[in-house]
Amino acid sequence: MADENDYAHWQDVTTRWNDNDQYGHLNNVVHHSIMDTVVNRWLIETGCLDPHGGDTAGLVKQVHCEYVAQAGFPDVVSVGLRVGELGNTSVRFEVGMYRSDGELFFTGHFVHAFVDRASEETVPIEGERRAKLEGLQLS
Amino acid sequence: MADENDYAHWQDVTTRWNDNDQYGHLNNVVHHSIMDTVVNRWLIETGCLDPHGGDTAGLVKQVHCEYVAQAGFPDVVSVGLRVGELGNTSVRFEVGMYRSDGELFFTGHFVHAFVDRASEETVPIEGERRAKLEGLQLS
Amino acid sequence: MADENDYAHWQDVTTRWNDNDQYGHLNNVVHHSIMDTVVNRWLIETGCLDPHGGDTAGLVKQVHCEYVAQAGFPDVVSVGLRVGELGNTSVRFEVGMYRSDGELFFTGHFVHAFVDRASEETVPIEGERRAKLEGLQLS
Amino acid sequence: MADENDYAHWQDVTTRWNDNDQYGHLNNVVHHSIMDTVVNRWLIETGCLDPHGGDTAGLVKQVHCEYVAQAGFPDVVSVGLRVGELGNTSVRFEVGMYRSDGELFFTGHFVHAFVDRASEETVPIEGERRAKLEGLQLS
Repeated sequence: MADENDYAHWQDVTTRWNDNDQYGHLNNVVHHSIMDTVVNRWLIETGCLDPHGGDTAGLVKQVHCEYVAQAGFPDVVSVGLRVGELGNTSVRFEVGMYRSDGELFFTGHFVHAFVDRASEETVPIEGERRAKLEGLQLS
Repeated sequence: MADENDYAHWQDVTTRWNDNDQYGHLNNVVHHSIMDTVVNRWLIETGCLDPHGGDTAGLVKQVHCEYVAQAGFPDVVSVGLRVGELGNTSVRFEVGMYRSDGELFFTGHFVHAFVDRASEETVPIEGERRAKLEGLQLS
Repeated sequence: MADENDYAHWQDVTTRWNDNDQYGHLNNVVHHSIMDTVVNRWLIETGCLDPHGGDTAGLVKQVHCEYVAQAGFPDVVSVGLRVGELGNTSVRFEVGMYRSDGELFFTGHFVHAFVDRASEETVPIEGERRAKLEGLQLS
Repeated sequence: MADENDYAHWQDVTTRWNDNDQYGHLNNVVHHSIMDTVVNRWLIETGCLDPHGGDTAGLVKQVHCEYVAQAGFPDVVSVGLRVGELGNTSVRFEVGMYRSDGELFFTGHFVHAFVDRASEETVPIEGERRAKLEGLQLS
């Protein structure tokens, strides 16, 4: 069952009819899309990322997905998010997904760097952005 | 602004990071996917369609989309649904989508038939299914 | 069967595993995505649209879809494209999709305007862009 | 540059307009969808999987993605596929993706088990299916 202490932040994501594949369950790609969504929504809503006008962009370096159980439309997915490792220039987000009945069906991680939009060079994670990301670490 | 009397049923749908296209707004395909989702979720939750074990399947005949304004991730979309025309063998669902700020950004319709899963022949809309669909008509 | 004279331009599009929905056929949203793709690819490859650096963007006003038969992964879809109506500020693209066995399974149209990216005002269709679009009209 | 000896099987996949995200490149989810597609198409075309009538289904256990460079619509992606590890009940597919200009932009793997559709129990990989998968191993 979902334990609210396992993650530092939670979001609900609605599933879509065409998320289900031919076997009647969420296609494995959908979990990845939900993970991408939850990370980016948190980044935007905390001001860590401004995809419209900001001078830095997020760049995904690595994604890892472990499928533990099945889920399917019309489930509303409860997604937990925490920061696992916070380096100088990249951050590892860790994600767990739970069905409406509370069962964990997916864990994954998502390694993100921030780059300067003009030069495409990596920029260090510091200041307000670093503080927000530290707030996603479990103590 | 959204008027709750314009539609008979409402659902909230969360947007996804990759729903936005290169111009920073919801790609036009996403509205179609949300319309498909809202219709199918209503059909499943009211018992009008059982995509796992049912002996009838839904078949989409026609879809029409009108784009009125822009929307974008991370908006939560408020979707209104009603039945516009209810024939012997097909039904026309009508949909309106509103942004978080209440502005209408999309209207569309979705014509659906029901078919026998084995024979793929159209089946008449009657009994409990017809009653439920009538309940989505505005009086 | 596909008649090469019905459309002025042809593209092949590969389908994806998760294009199929729970019924084992292309979900109705996928046809819309393929139509969007074929129009935009043609616009980019003919120089009518530069989504990276151009000062005009494409804006979709209306989409209409008619589903004539089923198709499914791993079909390669043969898509025909023509211009149906060419107004001062908008253009109506018409699309037909054929399965590998030559059967037409979808027709649709896609109404597109061009807008100035800074002001978001509609711009007239003229010059080189108009000439290219005229080249997609059937004589 | 792509070396045809690095992988045992190759497929071309067309990209779609809405594969590009707000930054103008393929969204990281799309690579995963392409990997899923190439594996399933190979399985279906070699007769290792029959998603319509077969009594076994594919079940994804783990997916891993490494993003090496950018790609974007309208690129046609050249995808290399090989089998890395072949266990009794699961197989690890390894994938590389190359842009039209020959540059590698993605590597990943995809761990797949086969399950009995009725019981949902894992089934051993043997006989014709095992022979086909062995044929995807580099010697």
